Amino acid sequence: MSILVVGSVAYDSIKTPFGARENALGGSATHFSFAASYFAPVSIVAVVGEDFKDADRNLLESHSINTRGLAKVPGATFRWKGEYSDNLNDARTLCTELNVLADFQPQLSNEDKANPFLFLANIHPELQLKVLEQMTERPKLVAGDTMNFWIEGEPSTLSQVVAAVDVLLINEGEARQLTNETNVVKAARHILDQGPSMVVIKRGEYGALGFSSDGVFSAPAYPLETVVDPTGAGDSFAGGFMGHLASSGDTTMRGYRKAMIVGSVMASFAVESFSVDRLRALTSIEVKQRFQELWKIAHFDELDSNEVLAHHLA
Amino acid sequence: MSILVVGSVAYDSIKTPFGARENALGGSATHFSFAASYFAPVSIVAVVGEDFKDADRNLLESHSINTRGLAKVPGATFRWKGEYSDNLNDARTLCTELNVLADFQPQLSNEDKANPFLFLANIHPELQLKVLEQMTERPKLVAGDTMNFWIEGEPSTLSQVVAAVDVLLINEGEARQLTNETNVVKAARHILDQGPSMVVIKRGEYGALGFSSDGVFSAPAYPLETVVDPTGAGDSFAGGFMGHLASSGDTTMRGYRKAMIVGSVMASFAVESFSVDRLRALTSIEVKQRFQELWKIAHFDELDSNEVLAHHLA
Repeated sequence: MSILVVGSVAYDSIKTPFGARENALGGSATHFSFAASYFAPVSIVAVVGEDFKDADRNLLESHSINTRGLAKVPGATFRWKGEYSDNLNDARTLCTELNVLADFQPQLSNEDKANPFLFLANIHPELQLKVLEQMTERPKLVAGDTMNFWIEGEPSTLSQVVAAVDVLLINEGEARQLTNETNVVKAARHILDQGPSMVVIKRGEYGALGFSSDGVFSAPAYPLETVVDPTGAGDSFAGGFMGHLASSGDTTMRGYRKAMIVGSVMASFAVESFSVDRLRALTSIEVKQRFQELWKIAHFDELDSNEVLAHHLA
Repeated sequence: MSILVVGSVAYDSIKTPFGARENALGGSATHFSFAASYFAPVSIVAVVGEDFKDADRNLLESHSINTRGLAKVPGATFRWKGEYSDNLNDARTLCTELNVLADFQPQLSNEDKANPFLFLANIHPELQLKVLEQMTERPKLVAGDTMNFWIEGEPSTLSQVVAAVDVLLINEGEARQLTNETNVVKAARHILDQGPSMVVIKRGEYGALGFSSDGVFSAPAYPLETVVDPTGAGDSFAGGFMGHLASSGDTTMRGYRKAMIVGSVMASFAVESFSVDRLRALTSIEVKQRFQELWKIAHFDELDSNEVLAHHLA
């Protein structure tokens, strides 16, 4: 089944301890789409400016990403400039230029409106709602992401988004900020109370926790020796997650768990290079192998019935 | 099989967002021993002052912890005073009084010297070496822990300890500090190059990573809604880890993985109360149940052979 994503398409200028890149293809919808493209057809709803390169549209199309909803309008493409400290955990925004994103009004085609899987990537929550409202019928699955900027600036609109999605994917720090709960388990329960049937707390190099009526699932991160650029890790996680759900159609808890692992796999590839350099050039075997490696990394046996416990009580 | 532990026995004064406790039984050897006591016989080598309460020795003995090596000498017991910030991740030391620990010279009994499992809990690395040197033959397994204070102050003595242990258990931040590597995978490889056949990187609420020639194992933390006092979590992890290895005798990688989960289980109990309040009062069923819960939290299926991957490549 196919996925519709609304979000940003950007040119990022990024500095990390491993180098720097100017005006590289980025944005929440971009990273999401490349990651998801390995599993299911993706249509993108976003806006770019006159400076958007044909080569970049072609790159999206080469991954079977449908760009008919990628509107090109007068002005410049959204730009983000940031840098990462030595431990790569904290991004410092140096400059944000909304440009054409400032007046973006998403218009869905009839085909887009009927998509069974919808991902509301990080963008103004008003735009997320406008896309959701245009769907002809409630999609089979709606998931969404957000960021601190909207938690601070658009809390009431954002709360409508949170109430409307089936799955909220959110960074650990932002989950705390959204709920005013320092404990991550309490923060997750708080979010579940607001509507979603599942919340996925993304913890960067520590993996992700999924909370639902099924309980908790802890998805490990793939341990990498070299992280070149963490930008887009969360969007790539979401792309792998939604991609697997749309591809398998398995929305049981078993399917959600596997989808989170696929998310973790795609996030680990995303951070191995700048922009979508790694995500655009994966093979099917590389993706499958990393899934199997994560399985081995996380696997342990249940206790044997004869295993000695409570020695001092014996 | 039985375990010998050398480390500190202390009276801790601790403040957390959930309350405060004055002069509560603590110390690295104490937390370790209570956690390990559920799985195997433990003998403790440590020193206390004249103020050490008979009730506390009796409490240790009630868990079948052999305290013949717990020397009582003139002076006061080691004291640590600290407080935790709201997120409970950072301990701030307010005061350290070494007292009788300043002149401690561990003396092992003949019985202690023959112990097949030895844990060098966090204490001056010189004392860790002095205990190791007294062993009549190389124990089946030697594991050790340390802290930033010794990494800064006693680097050369500490490097002898690291070279001598089979398993080093160390906090993530301290692994980085010890190796000058910001990346945790590189830090682990660096430590393995120095001698240990396994390194366990403890990551607090994010679980633990085990590195060895077998590859990497990611042990989840048990997600707790309420953490009352993180003091002793790492020592309790080590106690569960060594306890399971000594009890099962299974030092295959399968056994090490289960031992790390048992460590995670015991650490999660330890932080649910001040001092050893929770660790001293567990039932065999509670321990087994939490292990099974962690199994459920971490479990996911392998990819089905027919699962669609690389959609855009198809």
